[in-house]
Amino acid sequence: MSEPAKAVLLLSGGLDSTTVLAVARSKGYSVYALSFRYGQRHVHELDAARRVAAAYAVAEHVIADIDLRVFGGSALTGTEPVPKDREPAEMGAGIPITYVPARNTIFLSFALAWADVLGARRIFIGVNALDYSGYPDCRPEYIEAYERMANLATRSGVEGTAPIRISTPLIDLSKADIIRLGRSLGVDYSLTTSCYDPDALGAACGHCDACLLRLKGFAEAGVKDPARYAGG
Amino acid sequence: MSEPAKAVLLLSGGLDSTTVLAVARSKGYSVYALSFRYGQRHVHELDAARRVAAAYAVAEHVIADIDLRVFGGSALTGTEPVPKDREPAEMGAGIPITYVPARNTIFLSFALAWADVLGARRIFIGVNALDYSGYPDCRPEYIEAYERMANLATRSGVEGTAPIRISTPLIDLSKADIIRLGRSLGVDYSLTTSCYDPDALGAACGHCDACLLRLKGFAEAGVKDPARYAGG
Repeated sequence: MSEPAKAVLLLSGGLDSTTVLAVARSKGYSVYALSFRYGQRHVHELDAARRVAAAYAVAEHVIADIDLRVFGGSALTGTEPVPKDREPAEMGAGIPITYVPARNTIFLSFALAWADVLGARRIFIGVNALDYSGYPDCRPEYIEAYERMANLATRSGVEGTAPIRISTPLIDLSKADIIRLGRSLGVDYSLTTSCYDPDALGAACGHCDACLLRLKGFAEAGVKDPARYAGG
Repeated sequence: MSEPAKAVLLLSGGLDSTTVLAVARSKGYSVYALSFRYGQRHVHELDAARRVAAAYAVAEHVIADIDLRVFGGSALTGTEPVPKDREPAEMGAGIPITYVPARNTIFLSFALAWADVLGARRIFIGVNALDYSGYPDCRPEYIEAYERMANLATRSGVEGTAPIRISTPLIDLSKADIIRLGRSLGVDYSLTTSCYDPDALGAACGHCDACLLRLKGFAEAGVKDPARYAGG
């Protein structure tokens, strides 16, 4: 029996990346999960990432320290308030202030470094072009350009080994579709967290863009969200 | 009079990136210099980066903390010995063990994040395809693919502002050419350091690949290297 193929997976501890982990495991990959302490104020998501990594018994879980606050520029790493109770149309208009400049590019670059060291030919990322249409780095054309660059950046480009592929199994799915997919794979969403602005005990606010998208997704999928909400 | 255009510049404190800084300033850019504490054992290069940034009175100098040691995989961040006294042919064969996986991709991704926040449309990097032919991420086709990806990754890709350009003024130059270019721009190379394995006082070893390339470059340019060498 051959060894299972290795894959590096970006794991935030949220609903999307946890679903991607379930997909990667269902395809038989040995998963190396990568999370970041990047100055996010919703750092509690790392607790969720640890719970999820343990539940799926990943081959290794690395939490890399990078400080994106040095550049400022986002409500997720700065001190500006996270927007609350916005309508879907409002969320979709332009680039949201919760966009962290070049975040996926930075995250994928660390994933690429690890993949190069491990000899992994596959990177999984839970980007989604529908619900995050305002984020430039969630679009399929961005992922394709990243993949092309990645294969020129690393040993594979020089040594002619199999190319590195970036898998985005959620890219065309609605939040409800993602939840349905995850449930079909047995995902326990009580392990996950999505909120940008949780309270001190880690309960979700229920009003930021991420909470609203999540709650709408569960409502459309006809499933109760098992996450803890403040005052809920 | 209009404001000078902003540029983000990757500054290691070595000969190459310092020459690039002189080039960027000669073209009138307001320079935002970016260095990394990435677990490199030649961390003394950051002292050189600070000296160079101060000498050129850059608009801002950020040293970002990122820990590439979590992935292992290189003599520059690991505990394996740095190769010494290798012949040029040997240095050029295959990917050297001093190659840090995806390092330029990670560095450029941070530069891209900062450029996006600053509204800078230009990133300078001192890659060189001649002396570092074994590093996949020093090749022109890699830089072109990175630039394409970068313009899809950021606000410019969505908002239709001027594209981000990655400038590599040294890419086709020999080390001697770089030194001649820098001297024509008044660079003081005594500020810079190149050694992968300096002694405790910061004196260069004179025997690692970086020292050998540097010394060969100065010899070919007919100039004495003003750097301090151990026992010299």
